[in-house]
Amino acid sequence: MSEEPDSVLLCSVNTAAVPRHELLCIFGTGDLGRSLGQRLLQCGYKVVYGSRRPGSCGSLPAGTQALSHEAAAQHAHLIFICVQREHYDFMEPLAPQLKGKVLVDVSNNLKKNMYTDANAEYLQRLIPGAHVVKAFNTLSAWALQNGPADANRQVYLCGNNAEAKQAVAEIATKMGFSVLDRGSLSAARELEDFPLQLFPGWRLPIRLTIGLTASFFFYLLLRDVLYSYIAQQKDMSFRIMVSLANKVFPIVSLILLSLCYLPGIIAAFLQLYRGTKYKRFPDWLDRWMLCRKQLGLLALAFASLHVLYTLIISFRYYVRFRLAAHTISQIRENKTSPFDTTMAWRTDTYYSMGIIGFGFYLLLGISSLPSVSNALSWREFSFIQSKLGYITLFFCTFHTYLYGWDRFLYPSTYKWFTPPGYMLSLVVPTVVLLLKLLLLLPCVDRSLTRIRQGWERTDPEEESMKSLLR
Amino acid sequence: MSEEPDSVLLCSVNTAAVPRHELLCIFGTGDLGRSLGQRLLQCGYKVVYGSRRPGSCGSLPAGTQALSHEAAAQHAHLIFICVQREHYDFMEPLAPQLKGKVLVDVSNNLKKNMYTDANAEYLQRLIPGAHVVKAFNTLSAWALQNGPADANRQVYLCGNNAEAKQAVAEIATKMGFSVLDRGSLSAARELEDFPLQLFPGWRLPIRLTIGLTASFFFYLLLRDVLYSYIAQQKDMSFRIMVSLANKVFPIVSLILLSLCYLPGIIAAFLQLYRGTKYKRFPDWLDRWMLCRKQLGLLALAFASLHVLYTLIISFRYYVRFRLAAHTISQIRENKTSPFDTTMAWRTDTYYSMGIIGFGFYLLLGISSLPSVSNALSWREFSFIQSKLGYITLFFCTFHTYLYGWDRFLYPSTYKWFTPPGYMLSLVVPTVVLLLKLLLLLPCVDRSLTRIRQGWERTDPEEESMKSLLR
Amino acid sequence: MSEEPDSVLLCSVNTAAVPRHELLCIFGTGDLGRSLGQRLLQCGYKVVYGSRRPGSCGSLPAGTQALSHEAAAQHAHLIFICVQREHYDFMEPLAPQLKGKVLVDVSNNLKKNMYTDANAEYLQRLIPGAHVVKAFNTLSAWALQNGPADANRQVYLCGNNAEAKQAVAEIATKMGFSVLDRGSLSAARELEDFPLQLFPGWRLPIRLTIGLTASFFFYLLLRDVLYSYIAQQKDMSFRIMVSLANKVFPIVSLILLSLCYLPGIIAAFLQLYRGTKYKRFPDWLDRWMLCRKQLGLLALAFASLHVLYTLIISFRYYVRFRLAAHTISQIRENKTSPFDTTMAWRTDTYYSMGIIGFGFYLLLGISSLPSVSNALSWREFSFIQSKLGYITLFFCTFHTYLYGWDRFLYPSTYKWFTPPGYMLSLVVPTVVLLLKLLLLLPCVDRSLTRIRQGWERTDPEEESMKSLLR
Repeated sequence: MSEEPDSVLLCSVNTAAVPRHELLCIFGTGDLGRSLGQRLLQCGYKVVYGSRRPGSCGSLPAGTQALSHEAAAQHAHLIFICVQREHYDFMEPLAPQLKGKVLVDVSNNLKKNMYTDANAEYLQRLIPGAHVVKAFNTLSAWALQNGPADANRQVYLCGNNAEAKQAVAEIATKMGFSVLDRGSLSAARELEDFPLQLFPGWRLPIRLTIGLTASFFFYLLLRDVLYSYIAQQKDMSFRIMVSLANKVFPIVSLILLSLCYLPGIIAAFLQLYRGTKYKRFPDWLDRWMLCRKQLGLLALAFASLHVLYTLIISFRYYVRFRLAAHTISQIRENKTSPFDTTMAWRTDTYYSMGIIGFGFYLLLGISSLPSVSNALSWREFSFIQSKLGYITLFFCTFHTYLYGWDRFLYPSTYKWFTPPGYMLSLVVPTVVLLLKLLLLLPCVDRSLTRIRQGWERTDPEEESMKSLLR
Repeated sequence: MSEEPDSVLLCSVNTAAVPRHELLCIFGTGDLGRSLGQRLLQCGYKVVYGSRRPGSCGSLPAGTQALSHEAAAQHAHLIFICVQREHYDFMEPLAPQLKGKVLVDVSNNLKKNMYTDANAEYLQRLIPGAHVVKAFNTLSAWALQNGPADANRQVYLCGNNAEAKQAVAEIATKMGFSVLDRGSLSAARELEDFPLQLFPGWRLPIRLTIGLTASFFFYLLLRDVLYSYIAQQKDMSFRIMVSLANKVFPIVSLILLSLCYLPGIIAAFLQLYRGTKYKRFPDWLDRWMLCRKQLGLLALAFASLHVLYTLIISFRYYVRFRLAAHTISQIRENKTSPFDTTMAWRTDTYYSMGIIGFGFYLLLGISSLPSVSNALSWREFSFIQSKLGYITLFFCTFHTYLYGWDRFLYPSTYKWFTPPGYMLSLVVPTVVLLLKLLLLLPCVDRSLTRIRQGWERTDPEEESMKSLLR
Repeated sequence: MSEEPDSVLLCSVNTAAVPRHELLCIFGTGDLGRSLGQRLLQCGYKVVYGSRRPGSCGSLPAGTQALSHEAAAQHAHLIFICVQREHYDFMEPLAPQLKGKVLVDVSNNLKKNMYTDANAEYLQRLIPGAHVVKAFNTLSAWALQNGPADANRQVYLCGNNAEAKQAVAEIATKMGFSVLDRGSLSAARELEDFPLQLFPGWRLPIRLTIGLTASFFFYLLLRDVLYSYIAQQKDMSFRIMVSLANKVFPIVSLILLSLCYLPGIIAAFLQLYRGTKYKRFPDWLDRWMLCRKQLGLLALAFASLHVLYTLIISFRYYVRFRLAAHTISQIRENKTSPFDTTMAWRTDTYYSMGIIGFGFYLLLGISSLPSVSNALSWREFSFIQSKLGYITLFFCTFHTYLYGWDRFLYPSTYKWFTPPGYMLSLVVPTVVLLLKLLLLLPCVDRSLTRIRQGWERTDPEEESMKSLLR
């Protein structure tokens, strides 16, 4: 819960003392080079800059000096390259001096796929005799200058030389970061793409959610506000803020949840139909599968909003007004409505199913926290996500059916001949649950299990299987 | 929130290029071997299969070939053994060819303790000249084929040769997994047991919870539904769904929470009685201690359900009906019940204690998330779990006492001479809190601290201590 | 959710077998030495103790023996030093025998900064020929004896010799811990300070929170309880438990949240005024910045309490009593208050803003869980914490303005000429939001961005910039 780390934080305690004042070299006196140099100084290193124009490179951190690239590189075993890729070629003539030295490539690109190879690989090709290590590029400049903060604790590094990586890892550790080795230099490309990402896996699910929310909002606006305005001359516009929102949220949540489980079912039927698991799924199905987690978390967020919006019902002005009006009318007309046990059963069951469904929902959400899912074996994880997921879907769907009850029988439900929102929201989950039941039939389940264990159908069987599915 | 990873996911970006196309060998052309081979191919490796019948081993991934075991092993430095343990003996004659090579044992067993030693250790005994590394077995077959997914990010490995482990670790890293070294080959047994687990630590606590829930459910069914049906001829069965559930949940939650703290207290008294901490506790106490975390989390789950069930009270049909009826009767009888300040104090305090207790409960739950508890020092962790734990227990117990208030005085409370459920739920927490108070007495606390610091009572003191406890 | 691990847990399965029964030596037969020895024995090692008086050192774990230091060290390659720093000097004469051996320093101090150097560094100076590794000191004695438990899973180690560290890491792994290498021996000081911490970053925020809570509590006690007691002779003291608490919580929460974002704004204006980012901020601002996360989490805790206290409103005795009284009076006076659409809009919007604000609040909280923030790139993390943070602050502030509505117009609001609490709580957030708006003005934003990219204002520009800020 901190803002962007825009302050010069104190160099933390752990970096206090580096016994032998090792000399490090930084090529480039730009902002990045200066930030890095300042932090290295604070951590007890000696720093020398390599620059094209050593005489005129602005205010460097106190205690450092700028030399020519050659002179700066001479006494340092390890050189940080804080120069943009376009200018890497100045290093080519230095290749003999850089031989055997560790070059740390900290560069990033402005967008993805600007070059065919990673910057670090390009650097390695330019100076084959040096040990190039890709590192630090996933950190913000603030973290480089000020030390680790929340999302900046981990330094990923990769490179082909183990000792070079070890040397860089030690510096990173002294700067207070924790180091994750990502393997050989071929991983550099991935590391260079990492800082360019802004929730890449979330785009599709968020667009879908916004689309669904907007559609249902306008649909319900039509039915709940416009209809009573036009047909009954009543201004119910205040319902937008709570009543309408509290219809849109559960509808979208239920649809999103069922969309988490639909692709798995489609995949299963595809495997049954093809009789093998060794054919690739269509691309759209792959992409869909890859965003199930995000769909589920968005569904959970909307379910939580639904819960909060529901819990404030009883102290809304509108609700209190209506309850009082009802009581007053009972008195005035001197009649009492009798207690309706069916009504009590139905509404209580409806609430109960909703609460239990939400409880399972929360469990699913908690188990998808990275630290929790890492602590589970895959058998446990798939138990929670699959078994409990379908149970959650069942409870939430049942909750919605109970909400509807017998309303579908009354013509007044279909204002302007449109079905209410909750009916629309039931279509996908009902289909998903029915198809899942079909897959659980012993004969279908057996075939599927065999296919997933690697068995492949040969021609004669294929016909009978297809006929089974027809 | 994803389902079981049953799709062929795209090979992710990071694995794009492995510069030198290293040749890897896989023994075994079964499902596992094929899945693994496909993934290795996608990550840029060359793969060759070793098989008994190289001519007839079905459809292998495109770009691979099957040779005899000997031929396949010849040019690869690293060999994956995707064969079941029962067939390992075919490798014995190959020992000379396998000498110095890295053998990766990925096998699992169908159940625990099938063999006296781990598969990997057995393999090492068969071919002493090879470097056996146990790895990848904790992943699902899907993850092996498709790359890391939620609960399948970590590859555990162990082995006696550091370089062999390093080679396997690099392959795993290139496949996108993160690697955790578990030490020497003696850890193989543990790794082989890991995938067989399904919440092993949760069995006892869950059974206990189910038992408690069922008992209290039937007990309260008797008192709340059957009693009014038989004694008063009223059908209150609709109360099962919400009212009854909302009595069972808090009762079970409170008992489970106090059961978290009871074993610690028993252990303390045992240590005081024995005058040493160097004697082992009885087995049942050890087992009980080991499932305190699970008990606490189940208690939290039930407390959360209690909160949700409580919050819907005011818009239940039954409650609204009764409130309206009460208002109407006040009007009809033309008398107003005066405002009762004691009642206001008591109910507000009751709610307040409940909320604060639940807040601490949540804090305990959050601090037991793996990533949070890892970030705490043990002093901080034990502060939260012990101090805050007892405070939580105190607030929840006090909340329950306020709920009861003076009801215990009225004979009508004891339907059919049975005490209400909340009274039963107060027994264990009250005992735990009283015993904890006793342990906090300065003289007892001092003795206990000395014992826990390693001091042992010799005979003469023993008598006096025992007399203190009597 | 477990209590302090005060039991002798069973040695878990994974530590079952260490093939070659390696001999380890422990110097010191105190509590720590004995606990450690017991655990090492359980994990399959052979253990020998080195002691000053080998004949009289109490009950050692069965299967071990105590020798003189010299004799004990002779056959072991690795020696645990379980002696207090004050007695380290006895090892100086043993330097020749200890040469080339691995000495594991597990010591801690009773308070911070007792000595000028770390214990491990002191040990290394005493015996320069040995390889000192600092390890295990962050674990509780219970964990050392019984194996890993919740907050005791990680062994941090540091040392100057890689092989020595590797040897210690293997032992720790066999004992079931996961190992984190913190670099060279210079990190020992940090590791030795770690177990002494009890929420060091939380002290200032917690004090601030307590101060704010107490001030507002007494202020509102004055206005809400004392005022009606003195001016109206009504005893409203029961309002303390819920009504008053539910005023204090949101007020403190809103102020704390805005205090998270104020330092960032002050820093931005400071940078604008100075025209450079290369000057250090004042110390108080640095300290304030460092506790933003804690402030935010406390704000979230108070907001959650506010939510829970709000949700119980409708079943409080006082509220029900008042609603019934209102209905009854409407009947008796035979007049009905008409439905007020503005009121419905206003209250519904008020609730809606509150819920959405709380939803974002929760999102901020979840994203600051260590495992979640580690999974985010810094661009994603700063997006959530900064953009979403201001949006949260906006919603919560708006929620409070809607709560106030037009009350500020009525003189009766200002009991004893004091403004109500919610007005006071609006001061800081309003200022923060206005200043943030100012910073978002294109011309200001451009200057700030340039400064943060490393640009520095030279004299002539300085004047114009300062005039802009005036």
